[in-house]
Amino acid sequence: FLAKPAKVAIVGCPFSGGQGRSGVDLAPNRLIGAGLVSQLANLGWEVHYETQQSFVDIPYNPVPADSTQIKGKEVNNSTPGASSKTDMIQRLPDPDIGRMKKPRLVSAVCEKVASEVGSIAKKGWLPLTLGGDHSLGLGTVSGTKSKYPNAALIWVDAHADINTPETTDSGNLHGCPVSFLLGLTGCNIEPFNQWVKPCLKPEELVYVGLRDIDPEERKLLKANGIKVFTMHDIDRHGIGKVMEMAIAHVNKNGDTPIHLSFDVDALDPSEAPSTGTPVRGGLTFREGHYITEAVAETGCLVGLDIMEVNPSLVDKAAAEKTIAVGCSLARAALGETLL
Amino acid sequence: FLAKPAKVAIVGCPFSGGQGRSGVDLAPNRLIGAGLVSQLANLGWEVHYETQQSFVDIPYNPVPADSTQIKGKEVNNSTPGASSKTDMIQRLPDPDIGRMKKPRLVSAVCEKVASEVGSIAKKGWLPLTLGGDHSLGLGTVSGTKSKYPNAALIWVDAHADINTPETTDSGNLHGCPVSFLLGLTGCNIEPFNQWVKPCLKPEELVYVGLRDIDPEERKLLKANGIKVFTMHDIDRHGIGKVMEMAIAHVNKNGDTPIHLSFDVDALDPSEAPSTGTPVRGGLTFREGHYITEAVAETGCLVGLDIMEVNPSLVDKAAAEKTIAVGCSLARAALGETLL
Amino acid sequence: FLAKPAKVAIVGCPFSGGQGRSGVDLAPNRLIGAGLVSQLANLGWEVHYETQQSFVDIPYNPVPADSTQIKGKEVNNSTPGASSKTDMIQRLPDPDIGRMKKPRLVSAVCEKVASEVGSIAKKGWLPLTLGGDHSLGLGTVSGTKSKYPNAALIWVDAHADINTPETTDSGNLHGCPVSFLLGLTGCNIEPFNQWVKPCLKPEELVYVGLRDIDPEERKLLKANGIKVFTMHDIDRHGIGKVMEMAIAHVNKNGDTPIHLSFDVDALDPSEAPSTGTPVRGGLTFREGHYITEAVAETGCLVGLDIMEVNPSLVDKAAAEKTIAVGCSLARAALGETLL
Ligand SMILES: [Mn+2]
Ligand SMILES: [Mn+2]
Ligand SMILES: [Mn+2]
Ligand SMILES: [Mn+2]
Ligand SMILES: [Mn+2]
Ligand SMILES: [Mn+2]
Repeated sequence: FLAKPAKVAIVGCPFSGGQGRSGVDLAPNRLIGAGLVSQLANLGWEVHYETQQSFVDIPYNPVPADSTQIKGKEVNNSTPGASSKTDMIQRLPDPDIGRMKKPRLVSAVCEKVASEVGSIAKKGWLPLTLGGDHSLGLGTVSGTKSKYPNAALIWVDAHADINTPETTDSGNLHGCPVSFLLGLTGCNIEPFNQWVKPCLKPEELVYVGLRDIDPEERKLLKANGIKVFTMHDIDRHGIGKVMEMAIAHVNKNGDTPIHLSFDVDALDPSEAPSTGTPVRGGLTFREGHYITEAVAETGCLVGLDIMEVNPSLVDKAAAEKTIAVGCSLARAALGETLL
Repeated sequence: FLAKPAKVAIVGCPFSGGQGRSGVDLAPNRLIGAGLVSQLANLGWEVHYETQQSFVDIPYNPVPADSTQIKGKEVNNSTPGASSKTDMIQRLPDPDIGRMKKPRLVSAVCEKVASEVGSIAKKGWLPLTLGGDHSLGLGTVSGTKSKYPNAALIWVDAHADINTPETTDSGNLHGCPVSFLLGLTGCNIEPFNQWVKPCLKPEELVYVGLRDIDPEERKLLKANGIKVFTMHDIDRHGIGKVMEMAIAHVNKNGDTPIHLSFDVDALDPSEAPSTGTPVRGGLTFREGHYITEAVAETGCLVGLDIMEVNPSLVDKAAAEKTIAVGCSLARAALGETLL
Repeated sequence: FLAKPAKVAIVGCPFSGGQGRSGVDLAPNRLIGAGLVSQLANLGWEVHYETQQSFVDIPYNPVPADSTQIKGKEVNNSTPGASSKTDMIQRLPDPDIGRMKKPRLVSAVCEKVASEVGSIAKKGWLPLTLGGDHSLGLGTVSGTKSKYPNAALIWVDAHADINTPETTDSGNLHGCPVSFLLGLTGCNIEPFNQWVKPCLKPEELVYVGLRDIDPEERKLLKANGIKVFTMHDIDRHGIGKVMEMAIAHVNKNGDTPIHLSFDVDALDPSEAPSTGTPVRGGLTFREGHYITEAVAETGCLVGLDIMEVNPSLVDKAAAEKTIAVGCSLARAALGETLL
């Protein structure tokens, strides 16, 4: 699907608004800093990356912690020339809508990401989005789908992220992106319905790695007949057979474009400790890479997300380990092989 | 097999007399303290639990370490009213019989446990026994068998625990319960023969996870044609296929009641470090849970043991990890699923 | 193939000349010190071992660090009787040949090892070589092949060790032994061509565990049609199926003598941390042992190497863990089973 020679454009999304812990917004720059651009170039890709996305002009966005600006107000700096564009943006409040936290911010960021990812895809390049939290998946998949309406979605995660605005307990929108993509009941809601198109059919979606699913999510998965491979299935069949089945489910003829959205919490916490919602009993390092390698082998990858690396969690060694695994998953998805 | 709505009764057995290290008797209260009762209730079970078993009225039982009583003697407390029932029990000596250590104590405790487990089973409830050491398996399986004479036994362990009073090297009876259940040569011996009925046929038993077997045990396993799945078999076939074969071996028609006796040392020491006889190369966290999930799926579980958690070993973090895994194994066996 | 009763002779090779880090030469004595001799004897083998090989009379060998001798010179000890044979050897320089580092030393050591291993094999005994670095494989396989010209080679390693003198980047010869055995282009070179016979056909070789292969090695593997099972293959098929295929590839009729050369860096660094070139994503403890057990089951093992344990790396606990795993791999290859 991609133009030749293959080009990848990296979309760095320093965003943590879809969940409660800060720090996940540090990931894109850390992944880049670990050498991701040159690593992908060494695999033969033409890599496009200038700087990470800026979400500060979104008026619902909280002011960065290191800003001198008073929240919601412009700052009159004593030295006028020092006032930046950020300082001039009128901050707007973003109260909960129902249970949803920061709905306007998440919606606006995802809309921007969808546009960016979409325009990359339309050039025939591969968009590689570095989260940030997994609410961004609403943006990335919307973007990919704008170019490839029949694209399949492989969602690798400990969680299903399929809560609706009605079923979410925490209100954190990183647990909800899939429901908006599917257009489930309750998702036709302001401000998301201003731009989100339900673009994903249940049969175009397959999950791998699930092991922590809310009761209401369980019902939604069953009611919509969505294919799920939990850790139990991976134990039963082995990752080789599971990926064979997962890919066959969404890519029957081998010609369906595939968007792979990889939440690093799918990996076991021993492999990717620095993430916001770790769950025991996850993928091994090898299984995680096998998944990305198996997708790479299809030759159908058109969109990739590496999400939920949070370099501020646990400790320095854990963060470096998690960043390294994020980079190597990206490499494996882009064709790095052991042989 | 169980009455509806499903009820589970927890039998906490603070007992370490079947082996040499103390501390394993602390496990039941720690497992309960970690929230096991409410965890099982959240799965939809009616949970019966008041307090752990008291074995202090068994006269061979050593006095608890925190007692003021002199071993083997009554204590004349200066304040008469303060003397408890414990203090009034005449302690009796329990010298070795052959190689067996603490034979009278182990026999008496197991007889009591068999009665308790049996009466729970007879109500149509599920007995969940929390060890203590694995000599208790002589009691739990005897109890289950008193209600379900054709029950199968799935023994998950690094060890076969099938030494006889004649073959045991250490004399620790937690290495011997299976031989008594089978009625092997040498097991018709005082004081056990006063109450133990050889109630288990070799073909009703299957082992999973073995990796440390004494030479004499090896001979007994072969001579009796007992089905064993070692770690080598799990590596060869995968845990999915092994559990399929293991369950098929003892539950051909899908209607055989199953007692699952789970020694946490079946898990790799990295997953369950706080246990008395750890052995490298064990089950992963996921494989351990897969086993319990696979048994749960049969719908035939009528008895469950979680054995050999020793919270006094290694360190605090290790103990908490081992306790957590003990609880989650129990939950998985009682129907908690990933999906 | 072996005479009965089975005899094993241990060839301890304190050698680190094939790579840049010292310390790997400490391994043979540490493996022996961990009880390997008695462990193998307990399995029923007649074990021959007196002392490790001495390579100090090879004039290119650097003087041991604890020697009082000045490099390349004889030492005039004040007490004449104290001067040892070592001190009397005239040290010779060993400059690079092309990219090859220490070529004369490696060649001379391997020639000596080939002779030693060959003479053991010719007695109908099993040579068990303890490295030292993996350049020694050139010696051990040459030795085995001198007795069994049709012997197969199973090379278990994170690396392919198939660089030629022309393709090697580092010049470290522990990355090159296989190319000499195959007689690839560039290997007919001084001083190796004075004694090395290209004795291995590409179809007699199978690799297991590869995950870090140089681009030039990749080309050589493909050009020569060599069978490789990478970690990806192990994830896809499981180690059981992979070993079935690997053994079938080189031992179609079950009657081919097998030399097993096991580089402990094939194991994951979490299992064998003390090794010079660790690579993430390796074999589990269980998979490593499964490999050796599967080879043992063939009854065709005629040569065994345990290579690249470096007790000086990481820390004391890591070294002991790696030494222990080296011993248990040797035991498993020599028939220790779980059941
Ligand atoms: Mn997610
Ligand atoms: Mn997640
Ligand atoms: Mn046990
Ligand atoms: Mn055990
Ligand atoms: Mn090697
Ligand atoms: Mn290696």
